[in-house]
Amino acid sequence: MIDTIAVVGATGAVGRIIVESLLARQFPARRIKLLASPRTAGKPFTVAGATMDVEVLRPESFEGVQIAIGSTPDEVAAEFVPWAVERGTVVVDESGYFRMRPDVPLVIPEVNPGDIDRHKGLIASPNCSTTQMVMVMKPLHDAARVKRVIVSTYQAVSGAGLAATSELRDATAAWLEGRGEVRSVFSHPIAANLIPQIGSPRPGGSTSEELKMVHETRKILGDESIGVCATCIRVPVANCHSESILIETERKLSAAEARRLLENAPGIVVVDDLASKLYPLPRDCSGRDEVFVGRIREDDSSPCGIALWCVSDNLRKGAATNAVQIAEHLAARMAARGGVPVRP
Amino acid sequence: MIDTIAVVGATGAVGRIIVESLLARQFPARRIKLLASPRTAGKPFTVAGATMDVEVLRPESFEGVQIAIGSTPDEVAAEFVPWAVERGTVVVDESGYFRMRPDVPLVIPEVNPGDIDRHKGLIASPNCSTTQMVMVMKPLHDAARVKRVIVSTYQAVSGAGLAATSELRDATAAWLEGRGEVRSVFSHPIAANLIPQIGSPRPGGSTSEELKMVHETRKILGDESIGVCATCIRVPVANCHSESILIETERKLSAAEARRLLENAPGIVVVDDLASKLYPLPRDCSGRDEVFVGRIREDDSSPCGIALWCVSDNLRKGAATNAVQIAEHLAARMAARGGVPVRP
Repeated sequence: MIDTIAVVGATGAVGRIIVESLLARQFPARRIKLLASPRTAGKPFTVAGATMDVEVLRPESFEGVQIAIGSTPDEVAAEFVPWAVERGTVVVDESGYFRMRPDVPLVIPEVNPGDIDRHKGLIASPNCSTTQMVMVMKPLHDAARVKRVIVSTYQAVSGAGLAATSELRDATAAWLEGRGEVRSVFSHPIAANLIPQIGSPRPGGSTSEELKMVHETRKILGDESIGVCATCIRVPVANCHSESILIETERKLSAAEARRLLENAPGIVVVDDLASKLYPLPRDCSGRDEVFVGRIREDDSSPCGIALWCVSDNLRKGAATNAVQIAEHLAARMAARGGVPVRP
Repeated sequence: MIDTIAVVGATGAVGRIIVESLLARQFPARRIKLLASPRTAGKPFTVAGATMDVEVLRPESFEGVQIAIGSTPDEVAAEFVPWAVERGTVVVDESGYFRMRPDVPLVIPEVNPGDIDRHKGLIASPNCSTTQMVMVMKPLHDAARVKRVIVSTYQAVSGAGLAATSELRDATAAWLEGRGEVRSVFSHPIAANLIPQIGSPRPGGSTSEELKMVHETRKILGDESIGVCATCIRVPVANCHSESILIETERKLSAAEARRLLENAPGIVVVDDLASKLYPLPRDCSGRDEVFVGRIREDDSSPCGIALWCVSDNLRKGAATNAVQIAEHLAARMAARGGVPVRP
C-alpha cells in the first residue's frame, strides 16, 4: 500500500477512465489526488457516483505523492514531469513527449515488464495505435521473430479527445440533415468520411502518428531491425481503434499456430470464426481492457506472413489501462521495499 | 452510331448511373433500352429529368440490341448473358459471375484496352475495389514491374446497393438517438462501426471480395506472379471506396518518380500535399469518374516499396463508368466496321 497516487489531467477523456480504473481495480493507495489545469480544476467532478475534488496542477502538487499517472498534451507533460520527478514521485506518462528518450523506459506490462525497473523516475506509456499492434506482435515475435509489419489503421475519434467525440456526433447529425458541418477538432468533415492524416507532416511523407508506430514498436520490442510500414487513417467511429496488420516473420507460422500463440498470450482475446461472422468489431470492444484479434490467416504473397484484424479500446488498453497496469507494477515493487519509491 | 444499347438492371444503384452516363457522354446509339426485373420494371423511372420506360428482362429483350451493359447480381447475369450472346449482342457485364473465365476478357480501358478485341460476345468489368487499385498499379508496373501489393480497403456502403445506403442513414440516426438498429443488408451494426467481412468466407480464411482483388488483379495485368495480400473492410461511409496500398516493385522508384508516373497516367488525379492537408477524401470524390491518389511515399521497411492512399467513386469508375468506357470502345469498333457487331 502506498500513500498517494496522483492523476494529472484527471478531467480529460483518458483521465476519467484512469480514475475509474484505479477505483475499480482497488489500486493499493490510501489516497487518489486529482490534478488538472485551472480551466477544469475546481469544477465538480463525479466518478462512479462520487464527487471528487480536482486541484490545480502546480509544482507543489507532488509533495508526498509516490506515483503520478499523467494524461496531458505533450507541452503540459514537458512542464509537470520535472516538477514531479524532482519531488521523488515516479511518473507514468501517457504523452508522447518523453517516449523516445533513451533513459525513459517505454512499457507495455504484458510485453516488456522488465523495463519498468530501469526507470529513473519516469516511465512512458506508448501511443494507443502502437500498443495494440505490439501486443499482437509479441507472441509471434517470441515464437518466430518478426522481421517486418505492415499496418493500416482505422482510428476512432475518441483518440482526439472529448471535443472530437462531440464533433463526430454533431457532424453526423448535420450530415443526415444535409446541413453544413462545423469543424474545429478535425480539419476535414469527419461524418461519413475518412481523413488520411493523424498528427503532423514529417519529412519523407509520413505523419507523426505513423512514425510513432515505427519507432515505439522497435523500442518496446528492443529490436531496431524490425521494419514498420504504417498508414494511419481517422474513421467515423466513436471509440476503439482497429488495425489491418500483416506480420512477416523469419520462421513460417501457420494460421493455426499463430492463433494458438495469440490465444495463450496475456491480455489478448481471439474472436475468429469467419463462417459464423465472428470477428472483433469496434462497437463490441468499447469499454473492454483487452486487445481483440480475428481474421487470422496466412498471407499467400510472402513466404512467412500472417494477416489479422485487431481492435482495442484506445482509451483503455491504448491509454488508461496500460498506465494503471504500470502503476500497479510500481506500487507492488514499492510495497515490497516498505513503501519507499524505487529510485536507482 | 449503333442502333440500340441495353442496360440490364437499370433501376439499381449502378444501373441508374450507367444510364445517366450514357446520356451525359452522348453514347453513339440511336436508342437506349432499359431492362430490369419484374419487381421494378414498369414503374416510373426518371433520369436527368426525363421519364424512361423500363421493360421486363426476357430472352427476347436482346433482339436488335448491339451492346448490353449489365449490372445485376451474379445469378441474374448467369441467366441473361447467354440470352444476349445467342442473339448477337455484345455484353459488358459488371457481375462477378464470368470474370475469371479464360475466354472472357476482364477489362479496364486505361489498363488493358487490347483485351477488348479478344471478346467472344462477353467482356467483364472488374470488381470495384480491384479497379481503382489496378489503375494505380499500372503505371508503376510498366515502369518498375510490380512484384507484390498489400492493400487494406475502406469500402463504402453504396457498393452493397441502394438498400445499404438507406441502412447506413437509418442506422446512423438510431445510433445518434441511442435506439436499437434495424439490420437487414449488413449482418452487424454499420453506424459508427467497421465490419471486417465483405463477401463470403473462402478456404484459407479470406473472403470472396479479398480473393477477387487477388485473382482479378493478376488477370487484368496479365501477370500471375504478382502477389496480392488484401484485407477488405466495410466502413460507415456512404460512397467512394478508399484503399491503403503498399506496392513493391522490382526496380526502386522514388516517391517523386511514382508521383510523376501517376500524374501522367490516364484517369488518375494526384492530390498529394500533406503539409497543406491535401489528400483524397471520400466525400470529395463522390460523383467523379477518376481515381484519386495521395499520401505517396517511400516505404522504409522494404527495398522497393511505394505506399499511397487511393479513393474512387465505386459506383462510377468502380462500376458504371468503366463499363460505359468499354461499351464506347466496342461502339467505335462496330462503327468502324459499318455497324456490324464485332464477332470473332
